[in-house]
Amino acid sequence: MQPAFRKVVIFGAGLIGGSFSLALRKAGAVGEVVGFGRSSATLEEARQLGILDRIGRDVSQEVCDADIVLLATPVAQMADIFVRIAPYLGADTLVTDGGSTKSDVVAAARANLGKRISQFIPAHPIAGAEKSGASAAQTDLYQGRKVVLTPLPENSKDAVARIRKAWQSCGAVVSELTPQQHDEVFAAVSHLPHLLSFALVHDLAQRDNRDQLLSFAASGFRDFTRIAASSPEMWRDISLANREALLKEVKRYADELYVVYQALENNDAAKLEEIFSEARKVRSAWTQQ
Amino acid sequence: MQPAFRKVVIFGAGLIGGSFSLALRKAGAVGEVVGFGRSSATLEEARQLGILDRIGRDVSQEVCDADIVLLATPVAQMADIFVRIAPYLGADTLVTDGGSTKSDVVAAARANLGKRISQFIPAHPIAGAEKSGASAAQTDLYQGRKVVLTPLPENSKDAVARIRKAWQSCGAVVSELTPQQHDEVFAAVSHLPHLLSFALVHDLAQRDNRDQLLSFAASGFRDFTRIAASSPEMWRDISLANREALLKEVKRYADELYVVYQALENNDAAKLEEIFSEARKVRSAWTQQ
Repeated sequence: MQPAFRKVVIFGAGLIGGSFSLALRKAGAVGEVVGFGRSSATLEEARQLGILDRIGRDVSQEVCDADIVLLATPVAQMADIFVRIAPYLGADTLVTDGGSTKSDVVAAARANLGKRISQFIPAHPIAGAEKSGASAAQTDLYQGRKVVLTPLPENSKDAVARIRKAWQSCGAVVSELTPQQHDEVFAAVSHLPHLLSFALVHDLAQRDNRDQLLSFAASGFRDFTRIAASSPEMWRDISLANREALLKEVKRYADELYVVYQALENNDAAKLEEIFSEARKVRSAWTQQ
Repeated sequence: MQPAFRKVVIFGAGLIGGSFSLALRKAGAVGEVVGFGRSSATLEEARQLGILDRIGRDVSQEVCDADIVLLATPVAQMADIFVRIAPYLGADTLVTDGGSTKSDVVAAARANLGKRISQFIPAHPIAGAEKSGASAAQTDLYQGRKVVLTPLPENSKDAVARIRKAWQSCGAVVSELTPQQHDEVFAAVSHLPHLLSFALVHDLAQRDNRDQLLSFAASGFRDFTRIAASSPEMWRDISLANREALLKEVKRYADELYVVYQALENNDAAKLEEIFSEARKVRSAWTQQ
């Protein structure tokens, strides 16, 4: 039987791109995987790990007959890649990506893909980013994890269905939002918590007694600040890429914090308990999907 | 051989008190453990679990010849217990506690123990409080965990050494701070993160699209908000008990957040990266002790 996707081209053979390849292979859903990337050492490692069949030499030769081109680089590099692939994309080649923000990626695609924009179906796989590089790639990274597609008005139903199928072949649970909805949702549930966690550790790090403070930090601090060990470059880029939605969220959170501050200042035990109780109820009922 | 502590009286046979008893027993450091508490069902359960030898009937009969009296109730109940035990404490009986705040407990002790204040050596065992009740008590809860003593000027060296020995017998690593230092340290590394986590979940809980938001929350949100599932009553009491130090911390954090907000508003990539990098460096170097 023919695999669903004869040829897949990946830009960036790290955690996101490498795991995409390994998962498609395991599902028997891909024929050949060809990789491009900035680091030839990473590409060579990816080849040895079985992520890539070949390291690509000439973009024009590879993207013209690919079924899928996946952009799995940092978002900031994607505009350049759209420029490089646009003239050579085959008529049936679809493009998707693994970026954590969507409005900015869509804007870069619109600016650089020209009439090929209909072939780009943006995606955001919600998969941990604590490790990176080809060696971090896992066959089951997407198993049971969410992937959000943010289809464009220009996309055909068939194109969206085909990219949906690719991510589903990786084991992912696929849902859809508009790019703007996506960015607002993730500003609230992901980008804001990262900013708050970075800010807490940075605040403590400035103190004269920081070693004493940290020596008494325990499991609550450990979990609250786990995401403050995330990549500074990646989170700088995500913050700026989703700047408008994130500014709104920080402002809203500062207002919330002021409500808590006032309740505490006024010795308002009932108000504090109400806030904490509502939070506990919602957090206890939540289970990661 | 005689056990180090012939008789221990515990007020509150839940996680903190029950684990104290079980750990002392395992170390062969205690003769008899007698329990008092508000709930006779909990006391009976604690007896059946081997936490208590006896359920106390008359405070005056039990604290007069005890080596140690441990207050392991919510902090808000401790003033009443000081009142009840003060007239009957034996001359060699020492009192300690398991409260998460110290200045307020010390104030309650000063107000109600009279000249017996020299016999009270305040303590804060840094041990998880996600579960509660007698059934949550564990022999090894304190193994390798920190216990902070906040000795008073009135305490004799011998009295402090004896309480230190009791907690060490439970497996704890004992250190000392003044009550005020203690409250400032824990406002920063524990109470503030709890408040911030409660505030985030409460903020999201108010939204019309809260179900959608929560359906896309992932592992970063999970860890950041784990402590938002903590007991609302306990954290209401801790917040109010450590109100002054906590107000300072919230204010300081709001200032820090404003710095992050401004960097984002000004598209200041270098500043964002600097804040995130410093946080990551400090968080990555930190290991829970």
